[in-house]
Amino acid sequence: MPQFADRVAKAQRSFIREILKVTAQPSIISFAGGLPNPAAFPIPEIAAAASKVICEAGPSALQYSTTEGYLPLREWIAARYKKRMDMDVDPADILITTGSQQALDLVAKVMVNAGDTVVMERPGYLGAIQALSIFRPAWRSVSLDPDGPKLDELDRALDGAKLFYAVTSFQNPSGLSYSEEKRAAVADLLRKHGTFFLEDDPYGELRFTGQALPPVFKQRRENSMLLGTFSKVAAPGFRLGWIVAPHEIMERLVIAKQAADLHTSSIDQMIVHRFLADNDFDAHVAEIRAMYGKHCQAMQEAIAKHFLKNVAVTHPEGGMFLWVTLPEGISASELLKRAVDCKVAFVPGEAFYVDGTGKNTLRLNFSNANPETIAEGIKRLGECITDSLNGKAACKA
Amino acid sequence: MPQFADRVAKAQRSFIREILKVTAQPSIISFAGGLPNPAAFPIPEIAAAASKVICEAGPSALQYSTTEGYLPLREWIAARYKKRMDMDVDPADILITTGSQQALDLVAKVMVNAGDTVVMERPGYLGAIQALSIFRPAWRSVSLDPDGPKLDELDRALDGAKLFYAVTSFQNPSGLSYSEEKRAAVADLLRKHGTFFLEDDPYGELRFTGQALPPVFKQRRENSMLLGTFSKVAAPGFRLGWIVAPHEIMERLVIAKQAADLHTSSIDQMIVHRFLADNDFDAHVAEIRAMYGKHCQAMQEAIAKHFLKNVAVTHPEGGMFLWVTLPEGISASELLKRAVDCKVAFVPGEAFYVDGTGKNTLRLNFSNANPETIAEGIKRLGECITDSLNGKAACKA
Repeated sequence: MPQFADRVAKAQRSFIREILKVTAQPSIISFAGGLPNPAAFPIPEIAAAASKVICEAGPSALQYSTTEGYLPLREWIAARYKKRMDMDVDPADILITTGSQQALDLVAKVMVNAGDTVVMERPGYLGAIQALSIFRPAWRSVSLDPDGPKLDELDRALDGAKLFYAVTSFQNPSGLSYSEEKRAAVADLLRKHGTFFLEDDPYGELRFTGQALPPVFKQRRENSMLLGTFSKVAAPGFRLGWIVAPHEIMERLVIAKQAADLHTSSIDQMIVHRFLADNDFDAHVAEIRAMYGKHCQAMQEAIAKHFLKNVAVTHPEGGMFLWVTLPEGISASELLKRAVDCKVAFVPGEAFYVDGTGKNTLRLNFSNANPETIAEGIKRLGECITDSLNGKAACKA
Repeated sequence: MPQFADRVAKAQRSFIREILKVTAQPSIISFAGGLPNPAAFPIPEIAAAASKVICEAGPSALQYSTTEGYLPLREWIAARYKKRMDMDVDPADILITTGSQQALDLVAKVMVNAGDTVVMERPGYLGAIQALSIFRPAWRSVSLDPDGPKLDELDRALDGAKLFYAVTSFQNPSGLSYSEEKRAAVADLLRKHGTFFLEDDPYGELRFTGQALPPVFKQRRENSMLLGTFSKVAAPGFRLGWIVAPHEIMERLVIAKQAADLHTSSIDQMIVHRFLADNDFDAHVAEIRAMYGKHCQAMQEAIAKHFLKNVAVTHPEGGMFLWVTLPEGISASELLKRAVDCKVAFVPGEAFYVDGTGKNTLRLNFSNANPETIAEGIKRLGECITDSLNGKAACKA
C-alpha cells in the first residue's frame, strides 16, 4: 500500500472543530466557537446585492475570473485602508483569497521549507499553526504581555528565523493588542533581522473601546504581508479574505493561488462588493462593535462576580475573545469535562501553544451569545472553576 | 533578504492564463480559453435559488460551516452517481472542494513527497501539472491512443510510482476518452501495482455522442479518488468541486482542507443545491450537451474543409476540446504568433507535456464560440497552418 506524504503523517483534525461537535447541543451554553453573531449578518442587504449581481451581471458573476480577484473589490479594500489608517495600498498589491485561512496556506507554501524557523505568539492563532504545520517548520514562540510581545524574546526568536506570524489587534485567542510603542518596536526588530512578516488583522474593525492603531505593516512594508477578511464584518459563509503584499512576494502568491483553486468564487466577490458599495458600511460595522462591546462587558462583569481572584483574565478592547489563565496546575482540559457536565463549554488553551505549555489556559468567545446567556454561562463556569480548585466533584456527579 | 520556499523557486504563472490575456481582445476569435459557454448558465434559476437560500436560510448560508461540505449537496452528488452509473457512493466519502482545482492541491499535499513518482497522461491536464508541481514530484508520462493510454507504457510507468492522474472522459486537452476495455485494463494495472489513482471527471456529463461509461474508479475503489465539478454543468464562478475517496484517504484530505480554507463557501453550496433540487437537471445538461455537440461538429466540419490532410485531429464524443497535431517540426508557438496576427488564437500544446515534447501540438476549445464564428476562425487558422507549412509570411506581414 502506498504511503501518504510525510507532511500529513502526524497531522490531526482541528482540535476546536472536534470540541465544537461535542458542545453543539442546544442545552450547552458554548463559549467555545469563534463564530460572529448571525444577528449581525446584513441579510436583507445581501439578498438585494445577490439579486442585483445575478440579474445585472450573471454571465460574468458565474464565469471563471482572474486569480488576483475582482478589481472593484480590491479597490474598495485599498480605499478602506486609506480612509481608516491613511495607508496607501495599490489594488495590484491585493490578492483575494478563499477566506484568510487560504492566505495562511499560500504564505506557508511560498515561504516555508521543512525545518525553517517560524515564530508565533504564545498563545498563537490555531488556524495559522495548522496551516503552517503542514509545511513542517521549526517553531519558536514569544510570550505576550498585555501590550504585545516581550521584545527581548522577540529579538532572540527572530534571529535566523524565516517568518514571524502575529495577530496584532484583539488577538485570537487572547484578545490582546499591540500598543503603539510595541508596534514601532516590532517594526524595528523585523527590519533588523530582515524576517518575513505575516500580520493577520481579522478583528481590526471591531474595536469597541480605545483608539484605533494602524498595523505594523504600515511601518515595515518590505518582506511583509497583511491579511484581512470579510468574515467578521460581512459574513464568513462567503469565505472572502485577502493578502496585501509587495510585488515580489505577490508574484509567487498568485502562482500558488492559481495552483490552489484558480480563483475565489466570482459571485461571492461580486455580491460582497455590491453590498459594500450600496450600503453604509461604517454604520454596519458600528452596530457590530456596539453589540460585541456589550457582550464583552457582560462577560467581564460576570467574571468579576463569579471567578476566583486568582484566575487571571484579559481585558480586550475589541474582537471576539478573551483569555483566562487558571492557577498553575489546574488543567483546562479537565475543567472542560466538568464544565460540559454543567452545560457550559469553552476551548482549552493548550492547542494555541506551539511549545506544549498553556495547559492552565482557556479561550472564551463573547460574540455569539447574548448578555443574559453570557451571565448564566459564566456563573456556571465560575462554579466549575471554584469546585475544581477545591477538588470537589463535578456538579452532575 | 529571506528566501522563498524551494517549491516555488521555479514555479511559473499559468501559461494559458498569460496567453488568455493576449487573446482577450474582442477582435480575436479565440479557441484558447477553456470556458463553458455562458449562454448555458441557468441565470434565472440561480437568481431564484439565491433569493430562496438567503431569505429562508440566511443565518446558516452566511455562517461558517463544516469542512466536509453541505450534506444535502453531498447527498445529491451520491444520488447522481447512483442514477447515472449505478455506482454506490456514501455521502460521507464525498468532500466538497473549492473547485476541483483545490482537490488537486489537497491530493498533492496529502500524497506527494518531493521526488515521488507521479504518472500523467501525455498530453495531460495543465491544472493538475501545476498543482502537483508545487510538491516537486518526479514525472513519468504515458502516451494516449484514441481509446486511452498505451497499456505497456502504463504498466512500466506505474512500477514504483506513487500516483497516477488521469482524465478518462473527453480529456482536457485532447478530447480523448478511455474505451470500456481500456478502463478495465487500467483498473487491473492499478491493482497490480497498488498505486494511488486520481481520476478527474469534469466532463463526464457532457457526452454528446456514443455511450456513457462509468469511471475507472467504479472498478477499483481502494487507494482511488474521483473528482467532479459543477463548473461545466452549473457554473464555474461558484468554485464548487468534490472528491470521492475511501475513508482512510478522506480522513487526511479533510485535515488538509481545514488547513487550506476551513470550508468551501456555504452560500454557494446552498445556492447550487437549491438550483439542483428545484430544477430539471437532466434537461439542463441535455441542453449543454446539444449545444457543445453542435459546436464540435461545426469545428470538425471546418477542419475537414480548411486544414491540410497531414494535420491530425481528435474526434471527441463529448467535453469542450479537440486536439491538433501538426506535422513534425512545425512549432505551435510559432504558429500562434502568426495566428494572432490573423485574429485567431489557440493554446500551444507544449505546456501539457511533462517531458518537454508536444511542440507540434495545440488545443482548440469549441464550447465558447458559436458555429459561425467557429467556421470563420478555423478557416483563418487553416490558412495560417498552410502558410506555415509552405514557409509563407503571416497574413498581416
